[in-house]
Amino acid sequence: MKNKDYSVVSVKENLLIQNDKKADELRKHLSSKGIFFINVMASPGSGKTTLLVELINSLKNDFRIGVMEADIDGDVDAERISSLTRVRSIQVHTSGACHLTAQMIEDAIKEFDISNINLLILENVGNLVCPAEFDTGAHLNMMLLSVPEGDDKPLKYPLIFQVSDIAVITKIDTLEVFKFDIEACKTYIKRRNKDAEIYEVSAVKKIGIDSLVEALRKRIKANQM
Amino acid sequence: MKNKDYSVVSVKENLLIQNDKKADELRKHLSSKGIFFINVMASPGSGKTTLLVELINSLKNDFRIGVMEADIDGDVDAERISSLTRVRSIQVHTSGACHLTAQMIEDAIKEFDISNINLLILENVGNLVCPAEFDTGAHLNMMLLSVPEGDDKPLKYPLIFQVSDIAVITKIDTLEVFKFDIEACKTYIKRRNKDAEIYEVSAVKKIGIDSLVEALRKRIKANQM
Repeated sequence: MKNKDYSVVSVKENLLIQNDKKADELRKHLSSKGIFFINVMASPGSGKTTLLVELINSLKNDFRIGVMEADIDGDVDAERISSLTRVRSIQVHTSGACHLTAQMIEDAIKEFDISNINLLILENVGNLVCPAEFDTGAHLNMMLLSVPEGDDKPLKYPLIFQVSDIAVITKIDTLEVFKFDIEACKTYIKRRNKDAEIYEVSAVKKIGIDSLVEALRKRIKANQM
Repeated sequence: MKNKDYSVVSVKENLLIQNDKKADELRKHLSSKGIFFINVMASPGSGKTTLLVELINSLKNDFRIGVMEADIDGDVDAERISSLTRVRSIQVHTSGACHLTAQMIEDAIKEFDISNINLLILENVGNLVCPAEFDTGAHLNMMLLSVPEGDDKPLKYPLIFQVSDIAVITKIDTLEVFKFDIEACKTYIKRRNKDAEIYEVSAVKKIGIDSLVEALRKRIKANQM
C-alpha cells in the first residue's frame, strides 16, 4: 500500500468516529421520543423487502410503523412496502453511496415526520460490507443471509455478522435446491458473534416468521418501557 | 447533507481520478506484456467462483491463466479455484475494504509473478456497489446477477451494469423456484448499458457455458493479436 492509501484510511477513520458520535446522539434522541429503530442489512436480493412485508403486517397492529427504504436508485421497494402493508414508507436515495450514515438518517427523518410513529425500520442498501461499518443510530441491527448466497458468507464478510444482534437465514424453503450446510453456517455466525440470535425463515412460504416477530416484539417493548 | 459530507465526496472524487489514471497505466502495461485482464464483479453468493471454475477449465488449454481472489477475509475461494482447476491462484485480502483499487492490483501483481501468464482473472469483492466505481485496470468487466437475487437489480444498482461489457445471469436452473422475469431483466440491463452482452448460464447444471466461453475466447484473442 502506498502513502496515499494510508491517508485515505485516516480520513475514513475520522469519518467513522464522527459517524459513531452522531449515531449515539440520534439513538438517544429517538429513545427520548419512544421510538425504536431497527436497521436491516443484507446482500442485494437476499429477501429484505419480502421479509419486511411479513414482519410489518404482523407488527402493525401493535406499533405505529414508519419505513425508510434506502437504495442508490429506483423506488420499487418503498412502493412495494407501501402497497403491501399500508404503513408509511419513504425512499431514500444515497447519491451513489454504498451505505447510509447517521447524518443521512437524521436528514431523512426531518422530511419524514416521526412524531406519529414508535417503530422506525430502515432497509439499508443491499451490501454486506459498507453498511456494517456505519452505525445508523439504530437500537437493533438485523442482518439477512439467504440460502442461495451460500453458507460461507460469515467467513468472508466478518463485520456485518459481528455488528448484528439478529441474523436471519432467509429463503429456507430453497435448502433442497442449493448446497447450504445450515449447521456449519450457524457455527460460522457464532464464531463472529457468539451473542447473535439466529432465525431461519421463508417469507414466501411463511416459515419461521412467528418466532422472529415475537423476538422483535419483545425487544421493542423492552425498549419502550 | 452537511458540509463534512461534501468534503468527503471531494476526497473520493480525487481518489477516483487518481485510480482511473493508475488503472489506465496498468491496462497498458498488461497489454504490452500480452496479458488480457478480466475483472469479475457480483453480489456475495451470486456464483462467481463456481462459474469461474467452469470457465477456467474450458479456457486453460488455450491460455496460461492466473487468478486473483479478493475477499475481506478467508481464503476459501483461492483454495477452491486452485484445487478444482489447478491454475495458479492467490487470495488478496482487502483489509476491510469493499473493493479493489488499481494500486492494490499492481501491488498484488508484484507478488504474483505474471511473467508466465497471458490471462489474468480477478474475482472482485462480492458487492454490487463499490467495485463498479473503481477501474481495476481490466480490459473486460464481467458482472454476474443470479436468479435468486431478483430481476430488479439493474434498477437499483445502475453503475455496475453501466461499466460491465458482459452481464451473466447465473443460476438459470432455478428460474422455476424464484419469481424472475428474464425478459424484463434484460430490458433493465439494456437500459443501463445498451452495448452489454447478456448470457444466461447455470454453472452447476452446465447450461450456457459454451457460448460464454466462446465470447471470452474471441475477446482475449482479439486483444492479443
